Amino acid sequence: MTTQLKSFIDVAPDSDFPIQNLPYGIFSETADGKRRAGVALGEYVVDLALLEQAGLLTIEAGRNYFDQSTLNQFIESGRDQWTQVRSTLQLLLSSTNPELRDNSELREKAFFKRSEVVLHLPVHIPGYTDFYSSKEHATNVGCMFRDPKNALLPNWSELPVGYNGRASSVVVSGTDIVRPSGQVKLPSEERPVFTACRKLDFELETGFIIGKPNQLGEPISIENAWDHIFGMVLFNDWSARDIQQWEYVPLGPFNAKTFASSISPWIVTLDALQPFKTNSPEQEPRPLAYLREDNSANSYDIQLSVELQAAGQVQADVICQTNFKYMYWSMAQQLTHHTISGCNVQVGDLMGSGTISGPTPDSYGSLLELTWNTTKPLTLSNGEQRSFLQDGDTLIMKGYCEKDGLRIGFGEVSGKVLPAVQFNFNTDESEVEQREAV
Amino acid sequence: MTTQLKSFIDVAPDSDFPIQNLPYGIFSETADGKRRAGVALGEYVVDLALLEQAGLLTIEAGRNYFDQSTLNQFIESGRDQWTQVRSTLQLLLSSTNPELRDNSELREKAFFKRSEVVLHLPVHIPGYTDFYSSKEHATNVGCMFRDPKNALLPNWSELPVGYNGRASSVVVSGTDIVRPSGQVKLPSEERPVFTACRKLDFELETGFIIGKPNQLGEPISIENAWDHIFGMVLFNDWSARDIQQWEYVPLGPFNAKTFASSISPWIVTLDALQPFKTNSPEQEPRPLAYLREDNSANSYDIQLSVELQAAGQVQADVICQTNFKYMYWSMAQQLTHHTISGCNVQVGDLMGSGTISGPTPDSYGSLLELTWNTTKPLTLSNGEQRSFLQDGDTLIMKGYCEKDGLRIGFGEVSGKVLPAVQFNFNTDESEVEQREAV
Repeated sequence: MTTQLKSFIDVAPDSDFPIQNLPYGIFSETADGKRRAGVALGEYVVDLALLEQAGLLTIEAGRNYFDQSTLNQFIESGRDQWTQVRSTLQLLLSSTNPELRDNSELREKAFFKRSEVVLHLPVHIPGYTDFYSSKEHATNVGCMFRDPKNALLPNWSELPVGYNGRASSVVVSGTDIVRPSGQVKLPSEERPVFTACRKLDFELETGFIIGKPNQLGEPISIENAWDHIFGMVLFNDWSARDIQQWEYVPLGPFNAKTFASSISPWIVTLDALQPFKTNSPEQEPRPLAYLREDNSANSYDIQLSVELQAAGQVQADVICQTNFKYMYWSMAQQLTHHTISGCNVQVGDLMGSGTISGPTPDSYGSLLELTWNTTKPLTLSNGEQRSFLQDGDTLIMKGYCEKDGLRIGFGEVSGKVLPAVQFNFNTDESEVEQREAV
Repeated sequence: MTTQLKSFIDVAPDSDFPIQNLPYGIFSETADGKRRAGVALGEYVVDLALLEQAGLLTIEAGRNYFDQSTLNQFIESGRDQWTQVRSTLQLLLSSTNPELRDNSELREKAFFKRSEVVLHLPVHIPGYTDFYSSKEHATNVGCMFRDPKNALLPNWSELPVGYNGRASSVVVSGTDIVRPSGQVKLPSEERPVFTACRKLDFELETGFIIGKPNQLGEPISIENAWDHIFGMVLFNDWSARDIQQWEYVPLGPFNAKTFASSISPWIVTLDALQPFKTNSPEQEPRPLAYLREDNSANSYDIQLSVELQAAGQVQADVICQTNFKYMYWSMAQQLTHHTISGCNVQVGDLMGSGTISGPTPDSYGSLLELTWNTTKPLTLSNGEQRSFLQDGDTLIMKGYCEKDGLRIGFGEVSGKVLPAVQFNFNTDESEVEQREAV
């Protein structure tokens, strides 16, 4: 695979989806239409179910891997098949191969304008885990809420801290996000109040998708961890900071996170990301043996940005620019640690990186950090200020790699904030008072 | 349904499974055999797939609800069907109805000795959440690890604290439990060490199984919550206390819990538990409106016990006796709180109660509490002492309700502790030193 490889489909130089990428997704022609697998190529989606049906993309005779509503069956087919399918597709789609290029009937059926199809969750996600692996993010949070002199907790530098998330509420990019409600403790009140979240935030993350399971009781070694990863997505771990602040001790965030988490629709494979391998930060102290790996090529140089578009704004404002390479703990270290006690992972599991913050204030991956917990509000280009997200705001995350004229992108993950549910409790007088005090 | 109702199958008076119970499970005749749904009746399992096939148990013509490897499809059929199937089964199995009783051919095929079949996870569990709803347990833990004078954290009395668990490692009773390994911080060492868990514990819990989903963004009100619950199981939330102690700040327990959680194979329906409704403890302060319900019949009087059987011991020792009715937060309150921010639950989701401890030291639901963190070791009847679980120990939890001559039981959830995985890292000298220090 070189940058010389070209498709017979025209792909703009700044497209995220050249023939060197070919990320996998699930699409349908209408919202209720039949779902099947596709790859993105320039402005198009290539229908893999159709190519499979036409005999051009066979993994196993008589079985459908792409005429499916999720990618799980294809992913389960294993790494050899991922490589084989990628090669076959690059050959089929290349400008020098007449097989599909000159078959006008098939070609007409196999390509759909990306802007005209509906994209769905690419995988069934049996389990979702979120890590906390950006040193800058953990330090920022520690400075704000604990002790600036001891911002990092003692365990942070020894293991990739992680926690179980809620898989059922992972949604695909474009899904509206209803502002959550819950208990919030105001400093002025003795008891918590029930209220719509007033500190709704995003968290800029990436996620990786498990491609190969392990058996319960059989940890994945650091040497084998990369073989268990199918690909990566962009990930927005929406967070209700005020709900989180009250609920999270001692068992971690729950309602503050479980109302929704958004992923980008295209899974970019590790094969496509291979040219952008880079080192991760040096680790001091040196990790315990089970987490030790060569850090010279265990990360990726992925440029990430966050845009906020208020209701009525024509153009979104870029509010954060950062890079995946700042992550302290690698994906292999995260996965190995996840399974070290014997926990099993499953094909389709989503592993969130944790908020990705860089070293400079404009590279922080959450509004909490960007506005330093409301003390430094952002001013948008329309003159409005933001400490946290308002109803009608659309939040867009983008990511791409670029090197030697080759650009491999993720597309975007976006979501618009809708007003909170209106509750109508059977309240008595004291309760009404309490709510009015909010 | 009365205690007068009898089956043509003899059921011992102390059986957990009279015709008034009929809990649902999944069984097969051999380990690799075909899985299908059954109900427990005395010493037998009744094959529901066979009754369905014979036309005696039809939910929808032409569709199989019981010839399935999990109960999810049956549960999804809805509450009306649960009630209907229960009535049909009680009629079919009653001593006064000749339909099955006198059909010797069918009868021979439909009953299997419980001791001779293999029981499996009764449901596919899309999500697992664990709560922390025993006031006594939370107080005990707070006394040991925080401040005896302020043992309960401020949020504990205001909301049913919960966190996301790991669904993939939920296993059925009888599954061996491999002792987990991981990072432990010893007071004598500056850095953590990698070691097999030395403080392996159980947590006596019950779990409830979601029977009806909600849509993302649409919370379940406290009035409707009970309608979303299919039934209950016994639940052992195995815990590695030393790993937990080091990892859990600030995002909650992870590897300390994700290595395995065990459930009993039979789901006891709320219909079967109905005669044992009782009040839950009075709640002070009065919960916020969204969590408010009449506490006079929102709990169940379920007697629970824990037995420990060391390797070589003929008879297990009872080490804990307690009752579900001590739980401070009800299952309806847990579920409503779970969804209040908009989180969706799915059919088959498992919701753990949290460790169930009673008011007296012999009613504490974990070794951590029973031995007060190793300061008061238990002495078993074979003379051995236990602070935490040793390899070869089998832990058995049982539960049943009894009233007016009617006994409805859960059977048991058991698991045997196996030695930790032997790791063989590529270690260098400093690492060897570190491991020898363990």
